Amino acid sequence: MADVSDRSNRFLRALARQPVDATPVWIMRQAGRYLPEYRATRERAGSFLALAQTPELACEVTLQPVERFELDAAILFSDILTVPDAMGLGLHFVEGEGPKFQHPVRSAADIVRLGVPDPEASLRYVMDAVRLCRRELRGRVPLIGFGGSPWTLACYMIEGEGSHDFARVKAFALNEPDAMHKLLDINAHAVAAYLAAQAAAGAQALMVFDSWGGMLAPAMFEEFSARYLTRIATLLRNDTHARDVPLILFSKGANANLEVLADSGCAALGVDWTITLDAARRRVGERVALQGNLDPATLLASPEVIRREVRRVKRDFGPHSGHVFNLGHGITPDVDPEHVAVLVDTVHAA
Amino acid sequence: MADVSDRSNRFLRALARQPVDATPVWIMRQAGRYLPEYRATRERAGSFLALAQTPELACEVTLQPVERFELDAAILFSDILTVPDAMGLGLHFVEGEGPKFQHPVRSAADIVRLGVPDPEASLRYVMDAVRLCRRELRGRVPLIGFGGSPWTLACYMIEGEGSHDFARVKAFALNEPDAMHKLLDINAHAVAAYLAAQAAAGAQALMVFDSWGGMLAPAMFEEFSARYLTRIATLLRNDTHARDVPLILFSKGANANLEVLADSGCAALGVDWTITLDAARRRVGERVALQGNLDPATLLASPEVIRREVRRVKRDFGPHSGHVFNLGHGITPDVDPEHVAVLVDTVHAA
Repeated sequence: MADVSDRSNRFLRALARQPVDATPVWIMRQAGRYLPEYRATRERAGSFLALAQTPELACEVTLQPVERFELDAAILFSDILTVPDAMGLGLHFVEGEGPKFQHPVRSAADIVRLGVPDPEASLRYVMDAVRLCRRELRGRVPLIGFGGSPWTLACYMIEGEGSHDFARVKAFALNEPDAMHKLLDINAHAVAAYLAAQAAAGAQALMVFDSWGGMLAPAMFEEFSARYLTRIATLLRNDTHARDVPLILFSKGANANLEVLADSGCAALGVDWTITLDAARRRVGERVALQGNLDPATLLASPEVIRREVRRVKRDFGPHSGHVFNLGHGITPDVDPEHVAVLVDTVHAA
Repeated sequence: MADVSDRSNRFLRALARQPVDATPVWIMRQAGRYLPEYRATRERAGSFLALAQTPELACEVTLQPVERFELDAAILFSDILTVPDAMGLGLHFVEGEGPKFQHPVRSAADIVRLGVPDPEASLRYVMDAVRLCRRELRGRVPLIGFGGSPWTLACYMIEGEGSHDFARVKAFALNEPDAMHKLLDINAHAVAAYLAAQAAAGAQALMVFDSWGGMLAPAMFEEFSARYLTRIATLLRNDTHARDVPLILFSKGANANLEVLADSGCAALGVDWTITLDAARRRVGERVALQGNLDPATLLASPEVIRREVRRVKRDFGPHSGHVFNLGHGITPDVDPEHVAVLVDTVHAA
């Protein structure tokens, strides 16, 4: 059974929609503040950015959750905003306020000055972390590399920080579509190069987080988000190292656009919890695997409720190949780690 | 043509899916901070609550947008949290932070103490505002009354304020479903009584805002939100005054559940901008009218872009009866009022 079933390949087999002995599971933000060992390393690092930019510490927190739980994949500890930071926008974190850029993009002239960073130069610390994680994981579970979607990066680059409604970036896209397309094109090439370098450094799956694609009406989603996700998928298919590395796309809140996303050339789609996996499967057919989709708030309920809701998600997906269990969004800091163990055990149980 | 086409009945005819000469339009939060005359009255009132609780001032701001623009309906200026306030939770607004309750619901014992308020007693100021608005509108356009959904009110009642993810209320629903159902049942009766009283006072259409239903996975949405929206629709159908008053339901972000909502007994569904009206219509068929769904951020773009996007929404709905044009969410304070005039003119144009 070892070749179809153990923890080292369950995740990759499910992404390829091949049979597995148990549904694989990993958790978005599994290396995070709900873990006391993460909080200890984070304190030692001094800041979130120092943690992300020191390969030894990033590797340490990447491995913590797979050592504590029977998770089927590790995901590199990093941040999607490393790429615009490498473009010179000056990423910094304000305690309690989230990420900010010192030099946001405010005009077409600002966009002309942007270039595609060389990942092995200005993002070397990420590639070193990937190499270190692969070494330390010793083949126990696959390592996922990741980046942000061109649209989501543009949201932060133009707003300069997070936003309630991203009205400024939407107005920019509507009023200056040509400039926006230039920016998205640069972002797509930068993210594709970044992901390809992670694959070359050892990442065994790649994921693109389109955290803010769901803020767009369908016509704008196709024009400003999906088009550039497809471009990344195409660029990666033509890359020596990334060609055979499965790509997962996750556009949170963009469930109206699942068909478009499934046509992008990716291997799998992340799905948030506001649609059943049954409904999602009917929409995308056999084109892609699905990853998701338990409401993260479920982990605040009792173990009994967690078991029931995990079984509901598995039942929703049904007896098909190609399910990677995950939450529909990142795990929150107030979750009891024991509850994560309950989740993982229930996912693996028949 | 006057009987099928003028501003006094276009909106109600569209809700009944009857032919109209031009698509009717109103705008969520049309009486709001983007209007200088609103800001002047708000300053005179001293606070948001004083504005909402003084019938003369609430009436004044309710009428401002229909006097400035060719809108086809007025919506009462009020707040969905007036109902839990009347239950004794102590509503107050903290500048820049939004609404808060002094006495949030934290346990099953807190719920036992709650009762259904008599609208003509503790919510008399709302009914007086409805009567005054009807008198001042002099039949020019219909008046919409509104309330919050049982689930959305419960979100605020349990969290005590707004929340990023409403994790506390979700955990409460999962861990203590019996207590949650008691709370939702009280809320449904309270909101139905509140809406029926508004109908008796003169409201010609009623709308329920389920602002946070979209945070729920479909199974939880059916159990904790849709069930109580249906209960309100049923209670109103059995009420002498509300029986013939059309009911509009708007569950923002809950597009996975449009079929369930269309079966609730309402006349129309509000639709946010993350799905096309074409897709929404195919899902709900001929059961209900649809209200929506331009992205509010569009109003920050140029008049040319606004015209194009308004036409796109109208084209998405197609040549059917039963479209009330609106934004997919409330208008934001930074919108130029001239842009609203462009929107209204474009909606009315053939």
